[in-house]
Order: sequence, then C-alpha cells, then structure tokens
Amino acid sequence: MLKTTIIGASGYTGAELALMVNKHPNLTLAGLYVSANSVDAGKDIAQLHGKLASIIDMPVSPLTDPKKVAQESDVVFLATAHEVSHDLAPIFLEAGCQVFDLSGAFRVQSEGFYDTFYGFKHQFSQWLDKAVYGLAEWNAEAIKTTPLVAVAGCYPTASQLAIKPLLEAGLVDNNQWPVINATSGVSGAGRKASMTNSFCEVSLQPYGVFTHRHQPEIAQHLGCDVIFTPHLGNFKRGILATITMKLAPGATEEQVYQAFEQAYQDKPAVRLKGAGIPRIQDVENTPFCDIGWKVQGEHIIVISAIDNLLKGASSQAMQCLNIHYGYPELTALL
Amino acid sequence: MLKTTIIGASGYTGAELALMVNKHPNLTLAGLYVSANSVDAGKDIAQLHGKLASIIDMPVSPLTDPKKVAQESDVVFLATAHEVSHDLAPIFLEAGCQVFDLSGAFRVQSEGFYDTFYGFKHQFSQWLDKAVYGLAEWNAEAIKTTPLVAVAGCYPTASQLAIKPLLEAGLVDNNQWPVINATSGVSGAGRKASMTNSFCEVSLQPYGVFTHRHQPEIAQHLGCDVIFTPHLGNFKRGILATITMKLAPGATEEQVYQAFEQAYQDKPAVRLKGAGIPRIQDVENTPFCDIGWKVQGEHIIVISAIDNLLKGASSQAMQCLNIHYGYPELTALL
Amino acid sequence: MLKTTIIGASGYTGAELALMVNKHPNLTLAGLYVSANSVDAGKDIAQLHGKLASIIDMPVSPLTDPKKVAQESDVVFLATAHEVSHDLAPIFLEAGCQVFDLSGAFRVQSEGFYDTFYGFKHQFSQWLDKAVYGLAEWNAEAIKTTPLVAVAGCYPTASQLAIKPLLEAGLVDNNQWPVINATSGVSGAGRKASMTNSFCEVSLQPYGVFTHRHQPEIAQHLGCDVIFTPHLGNFKRGILATITMKLAPGATEEQVYQAFEQAYQDKPAVRLKGAGIPRIQDVENTPFCDIGWKVQGEHIIVISAIDNLLKGASSQAMQCLNIHYGYPELTALL
Amino acid sequence: MLKTTIIGASGYTGAELALMVNKHPNLTLAGLYVSANSVDAGKDIAQLHGKLASIIDMPVSPLTDPKKVAQESDVVFLATAHEVSHDLAPIFLEAGCQVFDLSGAFRVQSEGFYDTFYGFKHQFSQWLDKAVYGLAEWNAEAIKTTPLVAVAGCYPTASQLAIKPLLEAGLVDNNQWPVINATSGVSGAGRKASMTNSFCEVSLQPYGVFTHRHQPEIAQHLGCDVIFTPHLGNFKRGILATITMKLAPGATEEQVYQAFEQAYQDKPAVRLKGAGIPRIQDVENTPFCDIGWKVQGEHIIVISAIDNLLKGASSQAMQCLNIHYGYPELTALL
Repeated sequence: MLKTTIIGASGYTGAELALMVNKHPNLTLAGLYVSANSVDAGKDIAQLHGKLASIIDMPVSPLTDPKKVAQESDVVFLATAHEVSHDLAPIFLEAGCQVFDLSGAFRVQSEGFYDTFYGFKHQFSQWLDKAVYGLAEWNAEAIKTTPLVAVAGCYPTASQLAIKPLLEAGLVDNNQWPVINATSGVSGAGRKASMTNSFCEVSLQPYGVFTHRHQPEIAQHLGCDVIFTPHLGNFKRGILATITMKLAPGATEEQVYQAFEQAYQDKPAVRLKGAGIPRIQDVENTPFCDIGWKVQGEHIIVISAIDNLLKGASSQAMQCLNIHYGYPELTALL
Repeated sequence: MLKTTIIGASGYTGAELALMVNKHPNLTLAGLYVSANSVDAGKDIAQLHGKLASIIDMPVSPLTDPKKVAQESDVVFLATAHEVSHDLAPIFLEAGCQVFDLSGAFRVQSEGFYDTFYGFKHQFSQWLDKAVYGLAEWNAEAIKTTPLVAVAGCYPTASQLAIKPLLEAGLVDNNQWPVINATSGVSGAGRKASMTNSFCEVSLQPYGVFTHRHQPEIAQHLGCDVIFTPHLGNFKRGILATITMKLAPGATEEQVYQAFEQAYQDKPAVRLKGAGIPRIQDVENTPFCDIGWKVQGEHIIVISAIDNLLKGASSQAMQCLNIHYGYPELTALL
Repeated sequence: MLKTTIIGASGYTGAELALMVNKHPNLTLAGLYVSANSVDAGKDIAQLHGKLASIIDMPVSPLTDPKKVAQESDVVFLATAHEVSHDLAPIFLEAGCQVFDLSGAFRVQSEGFYDTFYGFKHQFSQWLDKAVYGLAEWNAEAIKTTPLVAVAGCYPTASQLAIKPLLEAGLVDNNQWPVINATSGVSGAGRKASMTNSFCEVSLQPYGVFTHRHQPEIAQHLGCDVIFTPHLGNFKRGILATITMKLAPGATEEQVYQAFEQAYQDKPAVRLKGAGIPRIQDVENTPFCDIGWKVQGEHIIVISAIDNLLKGASSQAMQCLNIHYGYPELTALL
Repeated sequence: MLKTTIIGASGYTGAELALMVNKHPNLTLAGLYVSANSVDAGKDIAQLHGKLASIIDMPVSPLTDPKKVAQESDVVFLATAHEVSHDLAPIFLEAGCQVFDLSGAFRVQSEGFYDTFYGFKHQFSQWLDKAVYGLAEWNAEAIKTTPLVAVAGCYPTASQLAIKPLLEAGLVDNNQWPVINATSGVSGAGRKASMTNSFCEVSLQPYGVFTHRHQPEIAQHLGCDVIFTPHLGNFKRGILATITMKLAPGATEEQVYQAFEQAYQDKPAVRLKGAGIPRIQDVENTPFCDIGWKVQGEHIIVISAIDNLLKGASSQAMQCLNIHYGYPELTALL
C-alpha cells in the first residue's frame, strides 16, 4: 500500500482526490493538508466537503513541515496554486516522493513562459526538464518513469484530446489556426468567494479572450498555433469544447475516423461517439472524455466533453498514477 | 418632478430602484450614491449593472456629504445596510426629505429589538415612533402622511400578505402557530462575494433556523407567534412561501375566500389565484404577490410568491411612494 | 453470483440500478428490459443514458415474455410504473425470483388504498400481505426473509427517517400534526417529455397540495397523521424535507439527541448532523440521508436530505438487497 | 390607435408581444389567437403565461376565420410555425393588414431554399419578393415601406449584427470563413413538451452541426460563407455568439472600432462595449444587442449577446413596427 498525501485538500480537486485514494486498492490515505495560514486548517475534511462525511474522517492539517510530511509519504498529489506547487514539488521530489502536480507550475518547458503567463520566475529548471506532461493518453511511456507528472490543465485536456489525433495524422490544414471555443463550469475557478463566481453574477460569457494561459499550454504541446476562447458557463462542473478546423487538402472523412480510432483504441478514458454529440451531462462525475465530430467539405468540427474536476484534473492525475505504477488505468475511477 | 436620490445604488435593489425612478413620470433621478469607502464609488452605474447601459448614464458617487445631498433631494431611497440606514435616515429627514428605507432599521417599534436581532442599539426612538411600516396593502393611510416609510422585508411581505387576511378575519386557530416555510433566491443576500453565495456552494438548504430576524418582524406586525424557516434556493430571484395553519373552529372555506377577496379587492399588486398554484416564474420581474390556498378539514395551506428584489424590496418601496404622493399605485412598475 | 434483471431500464432509476449491479461483487447483470411497446425497446442502454457508455454495453430489450425472463433471473428489480409493477411482480415471485419493487404497488396494506390513491383495484392481496416495506433502516429483519420488498417512496423515505426516531421515543405531541414541506428535483417525475418538466416551465412551486399519494404512505407507516406539501424544485436530483413538529410535553433536547443516536448508531446510510444543516449538494450522487435538527421551546425542526434517485429509490433498493442477502449494507453504493 | 392582432399567442414570443402591444401608446390589442386545433384554444392568456395575470385579461381564441380576423386588424404579428406563417401571411396581406412574421417563411429569397431547409415548397413567390428582412439596424429604409416584414431569426440577429459592420467595411479576410459559435437558452425551442427540452436532459451541447437552417439565412444575408455551430445552453433565455474571424490584410484595430461606431451610432438597440465582454445576464429581458470585440494579430473575436425572445424575436418585430410607422424605435420596449 502506497502512503498517499494530498496537499490542497480544501479545494474541489483535493476532495475528489481524497475520494479516489480512499477507493483505490493500492493506496492508503496518509494525510490531508492545506497551507499553514488557511482558514480551513484544522477542520475536518467533511466540514469543508459535506459529501465526504461518513466516508473520510480526517482533519485537513496545516502544512507546517513539508519535509516531515515527505518522509511519511510515498506519493504526493499537489492540488495547490501554481506558485505553491512550484515551491513544494522540489521538496517532495528530493525526499524521494512520487509527485503528481495538478497546477501549471511544471507543464511547459519554455524559456520565459512562467514570467509571461504566470507572473513568477521559475526557479527549478532541472525539475522542469524532468517533468512529464500528464496527458494520460499521449504520454504513457514517459509517465511510467518520471518522478514528476505535471497533470495537463482542464481546457488543454479537452482541446488536445480532440485535436491531436488529426494533427498527428497530418489531416489539419497548416495555414488556418484551429478555433477552440470552450465553456467551463464555475468550479474551474476553484473553491473561493469572488464577485465573478457569485451565484447572481454567473451568466454565460467569454473571458480571457486572447490572453488565457491555457492557450500557450495547448499550442506548445500540440506544436501548432490555436485560437482559444474560454467561456464561463452557468453550471457547476464540466467542460465542453467545440473546435473548428480546416482539413488538409485531400483529407477524407474516412481518414478522420481512422485517426481517432487508432489514437484511442486502447484508451479506456476516451469514448468516441463518431457523429454522436458529446454533452456535459454524460461525462459529469466520470473520468471520461467524450469526443464526436462531423466533416463538411473542407471543414471539420470536433466536440469534446470532460468533467473539469475529473478528467480535467483529479481523475487524470489518478490515471497517471495508475499508468506510472502499472495498475489498470481506471482503477478507483468508476 | 420630484428630485429623487438613491443611496446604495451598487446593490441589486438600488439598480431596480434606478430603473423605476427613470421610468416614473413624476420623478427625476437626482443622484446615485454609495458609501464613501466603497470600491464601487466613482464607477458608472452601468459598469456595476450591465443591464442599465444605454438607459441610465450616471456615476455612482461616494456619499461624502449627506447634508448637501439632502438639500438637493426631495425624495431619498435608502437601499443600504441596516446600520447605515439607521445613521442616515435622520439626516435626510431633518433636512425635510421624504425617506423610504429598505433596510430593517426602522421596522419594529419594540424595546430591545435592535440590540437582540441587529446587534446595535437604536439611537433614534423619535424617528422609530414616526416610521410607518411599508407593507403597502395594509398601511396605506399611514403611508400617505409619514415622512419615513420603513419598507417591509422580503420574507415578511410574502408571509404577511398570505396570513393577515385570515388572521384579521379571525379564521386562524390561536393555539397553533402558523408554520412558514419560505425559499429565497440568492439575490436576497445582496451583491457581494461570499462562500455561501458562491455558485458551486449554492444548493437548496434551510438557514437561520429559529433565529432569522425576519421571524420577530413577522410576529410583531401580525401580532401572533409564527414558526419561520427560511431556505436558500438555487435561483437568482424570487421568494416562495408555503404556510400551514390550523383554522379556527368552525371556519369555512367560503369564509377564507371572502377574507382574501375583501382584503385585496382594490389592491393591484396582489393577484389572488384561489386554488391555482403560485410559482416564482410568474412573479419574477413583476411587482406582484401571487397568493393561492387550499383547505382540507381543519387545515389550510396558503402559498405566496413574490420577486424578492421587487415586491420584497424596490417595487414595494416605489408602491409606497406612489401611495404617499397619490399616484396610481403601480406607476413605473409595469 | 446472482443473476440480476432490471425491468424499466430506460428510466433514471433503472440506469442507476444498472450501474450498481455492474459494480456489485455478488451480482451479475442478466438483462435490461422495458415495456414491449416502448420507443426505447431495442436501443443500447448507453443511447438512453450517455453516462453508461463504456461501462455497460447491453441493449434494453422489450419484455415480451416475463416468465422466460423470470427463469433466467435470481433477482428482479422493478423500476416500473405502479400498474406495471402490480401486474409483473406476481409473475416473477411465482417463478421464485427475489423481487425489489421501486413502485408504489405493494407499499401499503390497507383496504381501498389503491382504488383511492392509485386509481386501480389491487388484485394481489396475498402478495400485498407478504410484501415488506423497504425502509432499510427500520425493517431490516423483515427484509431479510421476504421475497418481495416494496421499496419506500422518495418523499416518504426523507420524511420517515426524520420523524420516526422521535415518534418511536414518544417525543412528538399527539395533538398537532407534523408539517412536512419537501422539495424534489425534477427527476422525481421520471424520464419523459411533459410541459410541467419542460426546462422553461420549471420554477419552484408546490403541487399536489393535500392530495399527493405519498401523504397516506407516510401517515400509514408512521401511524400518525401528517401534513405533507411537496414542491417541484429547479434542480435535477435530490429531496430536501423540512419538518416542523410540536414536542410532547416535557420532551428535552437531550432526549431528541438520544433518540436519533439510538435509531441510527449502526445505520451506515444515515448521517446525523445534529445542529448542522443538511443540503442537497452533500447527498447528491450518494446513498446517504443527512439529518439535522434544532429545538426551540416546544417546537422542533428536523431537516433531512437525500438523493431522490438513490436513497429515495435505487440505492435504497440495493441496500435492501444487501440486507436481504447479508452483504455489507453499502456494497456497490460508494 | 392601430388594432393589433397576435397569432400564436400561446408561445413565449407571443406572450412577449402581447405585453409590448399592451404597453404601446399607439397600439391597441385587438385579439389573441392560436391554431383552431390547439389544446390552448379558449384559455385565458394568463392561464398559459402566469406573469400576464392582472395585466392582460383576454382569451386565446381559435383562429377559425382568418379573413374575418384580418378585417378587424390593422397590424398582425405572426408568432407561428413556418408553414403556418407561409399559409396565413398572404391572407392578411391581401386584406390590407400590415404583417410582421416572426417565422422563417419569408426570410430568404432564393430558389429551392425552402424545399431544402424547411421541407416545404414555397407557394407565394410574389410575397417573398416583397418581403423585407427585418434586421432592424440594417434595413430601416425598406422596412418603412413594405407590408410584410420577415423578422430576422434569433441566431442570425446575434451573428449578423456582430459581423456585418466589419464585412461592409471590407475588414474581413475573404479566404477564411467566419466561425460562429453560439449558445441559446432553451426557450429558443418554443413552448412545448419534448425529451430534448426536458429539465433533466438539458445540458450544454451543440446541435444541428453543419445543418442548422440559420446557417444559410446568415450566409445569404451577409453575402459570405460562414461556419455556424449552435449550442443548447442550460438557461431559459438569451443567446451568446462568439465569432472568430481573420482580418483582411492591413486591417487595423482602429478601423474595426470605426466600423462598429459608424454602423451603430444612431441605433438605440445596439450597445457597443468595445473591449468589454457581453454576457447574457445584461441583455436578458431587454431589447438590446451587446457587442464587444478584441483584436490580436490577424485575428478578431467579436462577441454579441441578445435575449433570444426579444431582440431575437418579439422586440425586434416591435422595433420594425416602430420603424415602419415612424415611432421612436424603442417605444414599448423599455
């Protein structure tokens, strides 16, 4: 049994991770932590997340001594803010822990990326080099051996799973940028009080137009430019991405079908729907990414749907863990 | 044209009032204010409430000199916090303004009420004595002559309009307390950031069980004890109250019908539905209170629905203004 | 492995049952059926319920020959309409199947009950006599031995779990009827097209005032009169019940606490929250009933929350199965 | 006072029209009608639309004799199905009525369009020729003189108002199709029972991918190809359109700004927000179209928001009426 610790257990992704660890036959929940100065420090996890009552009976402790926590842990999930993950990951890694980071702190290996998009200077280029991007369906081999998995972001997961098979198969026109329109449930903004997330203010609208940090994450890992427009939707969880692309000259509907089939034939967390239409309700509370598509003339529209807290965060982190340790990929996820 | 000023224009009820004043043929909008230290001070009203764009083009000014504002106003609406209204109302009243206060600061004339339920000691008993409780359908005569209308609270409006006709007609059993279960949209908590109002945390639940300050407001003005249990609903606006009572011995269904008809026959803001069922959708964005009821044996269930921001606050304030000045009761409200 | 068949798999409760059977270590899914004339007959279950894709790959077959299906089944769940269950249950019972009926067809053993409240004359009084009311926490002993469990209704489950401990302990005033106000998500009306369930028409409102068939179900099984007012809420799943009662003379808060503790100390599906407030979000997608309460003077308010499709239907059916066969009570439910 | 008749008053757009006619100083409500075989025929309008109670007290009559109704009407609004409008409009036109048709029956003057996209053969090419497309901001001159206004569709209104200024100014790259992603509230599907509109089934998803009939309506009236992907959103009313385009070589941000300013400087129903972000909440229950945009490199994203029942249907119809008769454009709309 691997002693598993979750840092950032007060948030929504932390709560989902706690439920998964509790359910996993090879993991034991070693500890739940929040920042030492959090107002939630010391509370029972079920006080913060009522649905965990009677399932997990454990306090959320203040993380005052990470090195000590590291010694008591085999595996650490960082469900923390970007800067916090940036500071903590090296401590746990140096103590020999296997780390799964759900933040953006180790996702992109590119000079100046963090200065520009995250507002801090990255201090740990050696770990950034070793980090493997945790897009489970595409990086399984590297995930098996790395000590640090930088779990893919929510929008990037929905986007890349939909685009990558076509791009790898050379079916996308190079001269026209894919247009990604995606809508996320409010939980994507985390568990916190803000006017933007206030019930009475939430109403379908775009945000971060041309400036959202997930655009460069997607572009970098796809290796092509994209236009990415995120929207805030009036629902709690889920992401729906609608992607419009021009096909490469001569590309056929049959080739598109083949590309998706080949990419995901052995991937249990992707459900191909062909001409069927993905919708958020079908993936809510599941670890799946549903993908559908339609071709007309030179254009293709691909639609993907995930639960932003699961395949867009926690269940993908656990999927990476399962891949790393050789467990069946969806262990603890159904 | 009466020069009309709104204090507390950054909130939801303030925005509704601004629209009404703008629409009213006898009023002119003299100014919009917020507390001097508000983050919203100086912004255009349409920045705070997008739906007002192109309709009202006016900044929300910091209220630095209430006496000066009083001199420039005939009428003042206080859409402010209880303590703020408590402090401001006397200033405007002494300057000769007609004041409509939407807070709880002048609603109940009872020793120790404010200490107990609002946490402050009331300093203006002379104004408290002169204040008229702004339940438009029941206090019209007094509203006509008072300089200070303390507009009824949202839950108390929905509750009293449903109970008072029966109580006045002697149709309610004295030995059993009416049971009021009511559910309010989230806007009832005001325009602000909080975990409770956070989109992902809102989920139907009671709150303030046995302790909500609207219980004594209702009991005081009805003159009878009640059990009042408010609930937070997952919608933006509206209140639905379901009230269960035991009828007085011998009371008949016909008498119930007569009581409602007599109470509201000339009251344009109350719509009696008889056995029809009120629902929030029908009263949303309207100044109406819908009331329906059903009798079985010794029991009666009365259901009432209002828009909490309108009949539960702003439109009732305007209704009181219309009554006070002798304008048709629903002027600017349809 | 018990061969388990679900009749009525096109509905929401049928889909939940299918997931549970699939997860249960002692059950194997033998077949999914709908009425022979259903438009859904012959479709894959995942076409009807997209979230089941990749988990359950089985068609929903028309039930043309119940006797044959009975021979191939050890256990049968009837997630069917009342009349359908009434007709089918005896067929499966006579073939020796263990039957769990989620409808109201066998819940109440009272002369004339079905004529009055369900509009049909009950033909199987012998089975009605043998049926055990499936309120898992209260009838475990009888559930262990009966061939026919009539799983409790959704509102009755939320109501009785909250009232029964106090009633059994003699803490409720006999002279005043408990007042139950409850709000259900729209899924309570089943999976079907209707104006009432149409997205644009759903808005918080009561229905079935004084006439809902769950009132006599509750009253009969509690053995006391109640006033029950159901409401339609604008959410998909969950029930919240707020219950107001007068305490018996001399009853104390401590006795109330003891009564709940004793009733549910070994009951894993009930979570007592004491003065904590249940909310739908905490029980959604869980098999739990959350119960909280507050006493003031002679009155008590008890609040309970369940997922109407789970503890109010499918998970309670499975809980009864687990009790019947001696499996841990929450097997396949977490 | 113009005698004004509404055909199709049982639907959501019919109800909105009734409220507007009632409010309009130059119109008088002559009659409300539904198809002779409608289940709603003979009911009071307030039974169908509870919010109209105490405002409009009129039955919804069966339309048994259109010619007679025509004689009693100066103005007719057709809030009817496409085929019904197709059949009725000529009857009212020939009787000399001024007709505003909210359906798609007279929107596109193109051979074979109705066969392909609406499934019926158009019989009235002479009226089709005379019909003016009711996109109020762009066709005011023609609207002033035509007897038949074919009010623009909801998605086409949101889309064209956002694209047309740039296209007319030559700022859009000809070689790349504008990509329109739009999400509509459920009321867009009309007032009716269906599984798709069932509360429990509504969940953000695209539909009509590459096949929605609003695509050719948009393309025809813009005079350029577009990719249009509509989505069903989980809210009652409103449309948000996010449009991605490549700018023509050399086009500047300043030119974009100028194009919008010039197009809409005297248009009271369009609110330009520049870099501000439109959101559905701001336009709900208003006659406005909010438009915002952002340029980056060669690309522009334009966002527009409308209330689908108002600017996307009823208020635009009334706006066209106001233009036709020379009344201020937003009469009865604020």
